[in-house]
Amino acid sequence: MELHCFGESGNAYKVALMLNLTGQDWRPVYVDFFNGATRTPEFRKLNEMGEVPVLVDEGEVLTQSGNILYHLVGKTGQMGGATPAEQKEVWRWVLWDNHKLSGQAGTCRFLANFLAPEKRPEGVIPFLQGRLKAAYMVLDQHLKGRDWIVGTSPTVADLSCCGYLFYPEPFGFSRADWPHIDAWLNRIAALPGWKHPYDLMPGNPSDRA
Amino acid sequence: MELHCFGESGNAYKVALMLNLTGQDWRPVYVDFFNGATRTPEFRKLNEMGEVPVLVDEGEVLTQSGNILYHLVGKTGQMGGATPAEQKEVWRWVLWDNHKLSGQAGTCRFLANFLAPEKRPEGVIPFLQGRLKAAYMVLDQHLKGRDWIVGTSPTVADLSCCGYLFYPEPFGFSRADWPHIDAWLNRIAALPGWKHPYDLMPGNPSDRA
Repeated sequence: MELHCFGESGNAYKVALMLNLTGQDWRPVYVDFFNGATRTPEFRKLNEMGEVPVLVDEGEVLTQSGNILYHLVGKTGQMGGATPAEQKEVWRWVLWDNHKLSGQAGTCRFLANFLAPEKRPEGVIPFLQGRLKAAYMVLDQHLKGRDWIVGTSPTVADLSCCGYLFYPEPFGFSRADWPHIDAWLNRIAALPGWKHPYDLMPGNPSDRA
Repeated sequence: MELHCFGESGNAYKVALMLNLTGQDWRPVYVDFFNGATRTPEFRKLNEMGEVPVLVDEGEVLTQSGNILYHLVGKTGQMGGATPAEQKEVWRWVLWDNHKLSGQAGTCRFLANFLAPEKRPEGVIPFLQGRLKAAYMVLDQHLKGRDWIVGTSPTVADLSCCGYLFYPEPFGFSRADWPHIDAWLNRIAALPGWKHPYDLMPGNPSDRA
């Protein structure tokens, strides 16, 4: 399997992490996002949505991280929840993550770190940080007394929600503020096959330093 | 089935529309969002994420519009895509909608219409409108030469993506700018059982006029 990705993409990380944790045979294909690679006609032929990640699995092209995770759950039989009720809980949290956590964290992190300061749209970073705080509160409270978001073992709900939370570039998220999120991130990082995004995928900010 | 909802919620509309289009036995339960109902301890017991919609189906509580749609596809056998490949396409577009279209349109519409002008965070509405324009471009281009987002009949991908696009309150989206989206919205509105959000669910802005 080929994963079209770049290291700074937390959405790609969710998928790369699942591929590694479940022992899949995969290789990354570097997408030079910061030099406009996702805006080319060639890339748009691969994904009309113009976004990374894209998984190519024996000719089948899949996009949207949550959809790729859904495909890999079906393929591997792993990390999708142990019962029908748990399966729905997994998708509930993957959807919440797309809307409220990673969906906003990715934007906030990008604006705060990968855009020249004079180009930052005024007021947007504090606005996103306020909404993200509400999301951290929901997640931190949910993880109180739990090891994993759904059930008693890691699922793609955990991989989706952690997508942007291991990166070093600051965007207002501090693990010290959220003890249950902090413990859960340690738990994820202790899983066999876990790697930091910049060790798992090609590309990181030092390319442009 | 009970759908906890209010008329202004496009996320609730996606689900209410599916319930009506598939002829389900359901009733709305009004959630007085604008008077803080989703922030009460009682509501948090129903949904720890503090959000509408919530579907209660014979005691089973489901939240996150995409997850409820997934549940209803399973229950009704309808609107989920005709083949395994189409099913994945449906979820690809539902996830894209959560992240890039409805996820941003809902926020933009709220800030532009339901928040006192002096409370509007500066710069955020134009920022969201810029990102939404990119989303309309993807959807409009995708709908060129197609009747429906996936396959040859309506699916929950169509219901998810149209969630915020029938409302009258302005937030920068104009059907006249996007001819394929416009034609597709007309197609959805012509489906037996279609109703406008304010005719389908209790609550609308005139409550607060």
